[in-house]
Amino acid sequence: MLGSTHGTLTTDFRARVVACGEEPHASVVSLPTASARGGIDVSGRPLHQTVPDLDRFFRPRSVAVVGASDAEGRPNTGITRQLISWADRVGARLHPVHPTRRTVFGRDCFPSVAEAPEPVDLAVLLVADPLPVIEELGEAKVPFAVAFASGFAETGEAGAEAQARLAAAVERSGLRLLGPNTNLNAFERFREDLEGPAIALITQSGHQGRPLHALQELGIRLSHWAPTGNEADLETADFLAYFAQLPEVGAIACYVEGLKDGRSFLLAADRAARAKVPVVAVKVGRTEAGARTAASHTGKLTGADDVVDAAMRQFGVIRVDGLDELQDTAALLARARPPRAEGVAVYSISGGTGAHFADLATAAGLSLPALSAAKQDELHTWIPGYLNVANPIDNGGHPVGDWRGRKIIDAILADPSVGVLICPITGPFPPMSDRLAQDLADAAEATDKLVCVIWGSPVGTEDAYRTTLLGSSRLATFRTFGNCVTAVKAYLDHHRFTDRYRSPFEDAPRTPSPSFRKAQGLLRPGQQLSEHAAKQLLRAYGIRVPREQLVTSAAAAVRAAGPVGYPVVMKASGPRLAHKTELGLVKVGLTSASQVRDAYRELTDIARYESVDLDGILVCQMIDRGVEMMVGVTHDALFGPTVTVGLGGVLVEVLHDAAVRVPPFGEQQARDMLGELRGRALLEGVRGGPPVDVDALVEVVLRVQRMALELGDDLTELDINPLVVLGRGQGAVALDALAVCR
Amino acid sequence: MLGSTHGTLTTDFRARVVACGEEPHASVVSLPTASARGGIDVSGRPLHQTVPDLDRFFRPRSVAVVGASDAEGRPNTGITRQLISWADRVGARLHPVHPTRRTVFGRDCFPSVAEAPEPVDLAVLLVADPLPVIEELGEAKVPFAVAFASGFAETGEAGAEAQARLAAAVERSGLRLLGPNTNLNAFERFREDLEGPAIALITQSGHQGRPLHALQELGIRLSHWAPTGNEADLETADFLAYFAQLPEVGAIACYVEGLKDGRSFLLAADRAARAKVPVVAVKVGRTEAGARTAASHTGKLTGADDVVDAAMRQFGVIRVDGLDELQDTAALLARARPPRAEGVAVYSISGGTGAHFADLATAAGLSLPALSAAKQDELHTWIPGYLNVANPIDNGGHPVGDWRGRKIIDAILADPSVGVLICPITGPFPPMSDRLAQDLADAAEATDKLVCVIWGSPVGTEDAYRTTLLGSSRLATFRTFGNCVTAVKAYLDHHRFTDRYRSPFEDAPRTPSPSFRKAQGLLRPGQQLSEHAAKQLLRAYGIRVPREQLVTSAAAAVRAAGPVGYPVVMKASGPRLAHKTELGLVKVGLTSASQVRDAYRELTDIARYESVDLDGILVCQMIDRGVEMMVGVTHDALFGPTVTVGLGGVLVEVLHDAAVRVPPFGEQQARDMLGELRGRALLEGVRGGPPVDVDALVEVVLRVQRMALELGDDLTELDINPLVVLGRGQGAVALDALAVCR
Repeated sequence: MLGSTHGTLTTDFRARVVACGEEPHASVVSLPTASARGGIDVSGRPLHQTVPDLDRFFRPRSVAVVGASDAEGRPNTGITRQLISWADRVGARLHPVHPTRRTVFGRDCFPSVAEAPEPVDLAVLLVADPLPVIEELGEAKVPFAVAFASGFAETGEAGAEAQARLAAAVERSGLRLLGPNTNLNAFERFREDLEGPAIALITQSGHQGRPLHALQELGIRLSHWAPTGNEADLETADFLAYFAQLPEVGAIACYVEGLKDGRSFLLAADRAARAKVPVVAVKVGRTEAGARTAASHTGKLTGADDVVDAAMRQFGVIRVDGLDELQDTAALLARARPPRAEGVAVYSISGGTGAHFADLATAAGLSLPALSAAKQDELHTWIPGYLNVANPIDNGGHPVGDWRGRKIIDAILADPSVGVLICPITGPFPPMSDRLAQDLADAAEATDKLVCVIWGSPVGTEDAYRTTLLGSSRLATFRTFGNCVTAVKAYLDHHRFTDRYRSPFEDAPRTPSPSFRKAQGLLRPGQQLSEHAAKQLLRAYGIRVPREQLVTSAAAAVRAAGPVGYPVVMKASGPRLAHKTELGLVKVGLTSASQVRDAYRELTDIARYESVDLDGILVCQMIDRGVEMMVGVTHDALFGPTVTVGLGGVLVEVLHDAAVRVPPFGEQQARDMLGELRGRALLEGVRGGPPVDVDALVEVVLRVQRMALELGDDLTELDINPLVVLGRGQGAVALDALAVCR
Repeated sequence: MLGSTHGTLTTDFRARVVACGEEPHASVVSLPTASARGGIDVSGRPLHQTVPDLDRFFRPRSVAVVGASDAEGRPNTGITRQLISWADRVGARLHPVHPTRRTVFGRDCFPSVAEAPEPVDLAVLLVADPLPVIEELGEAKVPFAVAFASGFAETGEAGAEAQARLAAAVERSGLRLLGPNTNLNAFERFREDLEGPAIALITQSGHQGRPLHALQELGIRLSHWAPTGNEADLETADFLAYFAQLPEVGAIACYVEGLKDGRSFLLAADRAARAKVPVVAVKVGRTEAGARTAASHTGKLTGADDVVDAAMRQFGVIRVDGLDELQDTAALLARARPPRAEGVAVYSISGGTGAHFADLATAAGLSLPALSAAKQDELHTWIPGYLNVANPIDNGGHPVGDWRGRKIIDAILADPSVGVLICPITGPFPPMSDRLAQDLADAAEATDKLVCVIWGSPVGTEDAYRTTLLGSSRLATFRTFGNCVTAVKAYLDHHRFTDRYRSPFEDAPRTPSPSFRKAQGLLRPGQQLSEHAAKQLLRAYGIRVPREQLVTSAAAAVRAAGPVGYPVVMKASGPRLAHKTELGLVKVGLTSASQVRDAYRELTDIARYESVDLDGILVCQMIDRGVEMMVGVTHDALFGPTVTVGLGGVLVEVLHDAAVRVPPFGEQQARDMLGELRGRALLEGVRGGPPVDVDALVEVVLRVQRMALELGDDLTELDINPLVVLGRGQGAVALDALAVCR
């Protein structure tokens, strides 16, 4: 059998590395430095990624195996044997390295890499502690190394420190390291008889990549496998960017437990999006429990899942849940040509099957256009007139058994509204399904449209499946309705996305806006700002706040109310003050000087009673129309500042109806955020009411993004709630705001 | 190969039946009449179902084939041959019936069923128009018939009329008919070498049942297959109730496109729930498009999908989307014994696999308890100490290759918190996975706990899979993480549900409450009631409304305001009046006689200007606290009156955050409805506020249910919005209500 697995063999090396050396503590999660041609955005994050040239890593001319062995019963012996066979296969010369052995499997063995008879492209480190070897490799100018040893960041704090020392040594040495805690997957056998675009695979667990590697047995070509392990140096993003530029790669499939750095992943995804190379990923961390377990496996951050999810969508990374979906989606995307139309035609030998599939496809958002009357007439030349051929197309069974079958398929594919033909075959009935399978395979050869088949039999040993369907590299074959729907949706979404994709990094601000200097003066390190100060921050970025004055006496309050304009709202303002309404620190609808005076007294009394520290009382314009929204900034451990928009007022806490984005993003993404809200109808006008000023809301989101980027890590949290969005053309006003400085 | 399909053969019979005869139009969708021992609820719907004794249908002693043929090239010839072989297999005597043939395949052929040499248990009708045969069958006292002919309700209105005539003839004749528009699936071959509880299958499409029938090739036992077709007589519910009482049936799997009648389905599901027999169903109709296509396939109603979904959950029917999920879930539920604990242990040879599976399982709501320190210590006797064995349990690979593997599995299964052990094996690595598979199969034999394996290889021809895993009837084997999670969740949910299940039909009201007569007097056939009248209807059922008076002069309004109590709300009240707020027909916070007088004038002016018909002006108590909810009644085409509860005010329209139930249901279901709301936190108290009077809200839901049942079809629609729920112990008040009478 092809590809017997060795994904777990490296557990032999899971010896705890003893911490040693005096290297300074490098942070395990560190921002990548901007490349020479690069530049950084105003938040200090890189705008360009240097793609490592990994050609020599994947196709080395010479390989040194450090710790090679041919001694009976030693785990390294098996690995050495596998590496020799791999080297022979790919035409690399392999040099065993061992301090005491003279030969290994009959090959000359050298005491060190430096003593190898030629420059070494890749060193495979089979030693329990790779750290001492790194310097030697650097001196020998070895460009690449792989370290299998485990016992690093995946084991906890001490391991993370050992990994930081290793990373620092690697950086000093100038080589690029894969690992530690990785395995032999990079040296797997790939079938060379398969043609067409291939899947390149990146996994943070060898066992998890195994079923994708096995896809080759179903005729799906694989070109590379990068098992990234602990990513002390080379990370998922490096392989992503490298694979995205290779002509043979049709799609990149990733199994990700945690990311080393958010920005480098996004820059790599951006490269793939610009190159129109689909990236499909399983990302563990839907739940706290999953995130925790994953962290203990590779020692990396999984990030807040909603942020990861949004970031992936922003850059067109297709996230799926199961490895089966990863396989089916990546296989389809790698091989299918761009769609000529977005319409899906469902063709079946059973009305029930067509109805069921159409139901699931429509629920997932696929479009099944009704075929034209003329096309239906044409189909009825071969299909009995009492059967429904509008789409789904029910042929009733018999026409597939003879010459009519192919005619029908070709006629459907010739329809300009049809970009994808899907034929679900739930059970084999050889007199019909064998010929149907052959007709579909033949038709797929003759068209540039996508032809999908679902072979629904749970058995899967049938000839029509294994020979006819899997034998065709032009057909996309699935085993379940669900995976076909997921993959076809991803295929159409991917092309729609990349066709209109514009890199947000091109437009990302590199220098601070004039607002920045004003805003900087308002920040108070380590403090929560008062409402008044937070609103000044907003004003600095051109976000509208109500007319208001901060006053410190009842008389001043009355004086302020005139220019603010009755009725007024009065609120206590002070640092560390939240939940003002609950404390009774807000008075609304005050219509006279005496009410203002009374309110001033009452508010200051409550503040005293509650021991609340005030910077004064705000006398504000009352705005009681509009739709209450919220716009905010939070910090994500992986991605830094993120921007959120959602329903405002009390509801945001109850319904959690909010959308998030990772900067930088453009106006279209800001509009898309609103489309993600369940309560988006509120913005379109409720009960025949007029729509609100969505443009103004989008503008606030973009200004808040600018603020988040420019103030960067100094602004830990911003929460504008409510932001009242008025009628069209009337703008949006921040009625309250909370800002926390680092 | 077993089970070559004939699901589509009946298309030969899809000749249009010519309408004839003078039978009165029976409604295709009709309420079943109450059985003798039964009784009806207060809405006139039956409370008991008569289960047809289908033993003689599935195991007939003698079978007549009407339209039998052995003439070369005739479709009936193939079918006759299949029926003969089926009859031989099950030990039935088969009698061909044909007006002109003397013998068929060497057997004596009779001109009519009456002339057969013995009483006939089952007549299989291979004729294009079964109607003329029905009377003859009735006279010959044949208990069961099957009709394959198509061209009935699935073809439109004229076909529906033909089907109604057929149904009427069947009812007069006293026989029970399967079909029309059905097929040979009831006479499929079932493997008899398989043991243990079986799946019984009910499908409304032959092709859609095919993969379930093929499960036998994977070792899953099937006992019956009922292809219900157009259900002119026997329907899904009849087979469901019959199968639920058979000892050999472990689970019932259904593929449903539309239901003939909502209540009969619920009564059957209730029987299954009481018998603790799991029912798993694919129900087409998630989307409008799917519902339409399904209706055109079998001519049945698909029902409002949210109502179908709720009804299934109420009675414990497990709804799944894909046929693969139907197979995997039914297979697991048929064979697994009741759980001893609800905890799931995930055991894997790879930390990544464990983390990934745990993430998906937790996200789906499965509980993965952390194993005790003592248990972890025990596991570490075989598993290296640096590996995480808390749950998921990562063995690092090697221990499964030797004697330790079985020890670990047994130790996990011995843990009292563990009810289910799941071992995901994503790829085959024979030195480990072969032994692991064998150990799991052996351990499953020795335990009464559930042991699940996921064989993640996309290939599926491996020995460990086909022989070891599929060869064990005690293991539950899956191919994807997703389906395993779905099935295990369904398994635990099913047992939790049936353990505490109490039939709501037992407590359903049979006679009207004292409220009923009061309410009846308030209904106005064909009209929408005024707010005032609708509130009287609520009061009749003990639902609290604000203090209010209906007045027809300004002076009366002022007089009313006193006893109502200032501040008051004034609203226009009239039939056909909705969206009062938008029209300016509501005035709130009126604090004086002069304001009341002005408001009266303004409201009547607006009503005149808008040509609104008023029955007066309501002077109401103002209630400005509490949480706004809505409770309502609508009518579903399948299930009749349904009760909805959701967020009230404007939000219900924007967020569609509501839960629905089909009566009869008990208090626990009413509480569960609240738990389904996304905004349920509103009821628990927002921002530290006190929780609201949930008991009062539940009581309103139950009173509204009573109203819906008693007023039945006469109350087309009721919408209490807002229903203000006050603080705990303070009740709930219906501030506004809209009622439409039939």
